[in-house]
Amino acid sequence: MAKNSNISIAVIRRLPRYYRYLTDLKDRDIQRISSRELAEIMDLTASQIRQDLNCFGGFGQQGYGYHVETLLNEVGKILGIDKGYKIILFGAGNLGRAIALHIDFDRRGFKLCGIFDKNPAITGQEISGHLIHGLEDLEEFCKKETPTVAALCIPKEAAEELVPQLVELGIRAFWNFSHYDINLAQYPNVISENVHLGDSMMTLCYQVKESESK
Amino acid sequence: MAKNSNISIAVIRRLPRYYRYLTDLKDRDIQRISSRELAEIMDLTASQIRQDLNCFGGFGQQGYGYHVETLLNEVGKILGIDKGYKIILFGAGNLGRAIALHIDFDRRGFKLCGIFDKNPAITGQEISGHLIHGLEDLEEFCKKETPTVAALCIPKEAAEELVPQLVELGIRAFWNFSHYDINLAQYPNVISENVHLGDSMMTLCYQVKESESK
Repeated sequence: MAKNSNISIAVIRRLPRYYRYLTDLKDRDIQRISSRELAEIMDLTASQIRQDLNCFGGFGQQGYGYHVETLLNEVGKILGIDKGYKIILFGAGNLGRAIALHIDFDRRGFKLCGIFDKNPAITGQEISGHLIHGLEDLEEFCKKETPTVAALCIPKEAAEELVPQLVELGIRAFWNFSHYDINLAQYPNVISENVHLGDSMMTLCYQVKESESK
Repeated sequence: MAKNSNISIAVIRRLPRYYRYLTDLKDRDIQRISSRELAEIMDLTASQIRQDLNCFGGFGQQGYGYHVETLLNEVGKILGIDKGYKIILFGAGNLGRAIALHIDFDRRGFKLCGIFDKNPAITGQEISGHLIHGLEDLEEFCKKETPTVAALCIPKEAAEELVPQLVELGIRAFWNFSHYDINLAQYPNVISENVHLGDSMMTLCYQVKESESK
């Protein structure tokens, strides 16, 4: 039984990685693994692994290790990947299109249910079976489909304008690729998972630069 | 003068955000800003800002605050965004294509100098002026162009196979979108900035699930 309150975000951020490695082990028909072996392939320490998984109630057995499929299922349950939260995607440009085509939403806990773009030149087209709606459809769509999450693959200014409207329409979490930081102080019940690719690039640039001077 | 050794990665990860906000302020012709004002728009505390920037030698003046353009330039210099490190991109599928078209490499410290894909059906085509090379061109290309960084927009298995070869060819940093975790213990001088979109989605899923039970 998972005791999943007050878990630090650092632990949470490691869980998808456990999920990935366990999926891989299962795909390779490996049935059980010790915390030491799991630590080795994940480049963590065994005590780190035991500590992480203890946050959710353990699952390991002394002298046996972890049963891969059980642990995989438990981690999946903790992450909520069976939930199928409805997600709508904004921006059918290069990035939005790639996200719609590249991400396996179903295996990550989501169900892509709509794509929106304000550009009339592309509304009415389809991306992997999803019609691209214009923003004029948004309100009715949300009333009917009641999506929970919005992925923002749009510019900063567009995101700034859209977020209040989406919160109003019941969206309570964002997968945010825009360079707009959603002000969470203003929306205390809203969740934002930011993927700032430009920031990531600049962080990499700094690290490369620093490694040169060593 | 920047005193930039032993800065924590948490501070480093905030720098691109400073850079973004300062760019925005400059674009709006704002010439100076106090740490309190900057804190407010960035949703940080003023003391956090002073502490962060002190890691690099300050730049603020008591009673005046920060000169936006000077600070922007200094943060840019610290990040190394004038460096123009040569980057090659692997995988010209949906994601690679979006990265090539969507990311403003020049403004993030990099210069995209080559795109590679193993699929002969698309090699020879172009993405935003860059020829898609086959992997058979890789060795000669690296000898001639000496790229520093590789962006990996390829599946796990392909990345696993490619990374040792790229390290051999002089690549010393990866912008890694693949689900393959580069074993940094094996390559102690290699830098890896991971963008695991699937992990990000699952983290979001967990947060949505947790917020439901509150």
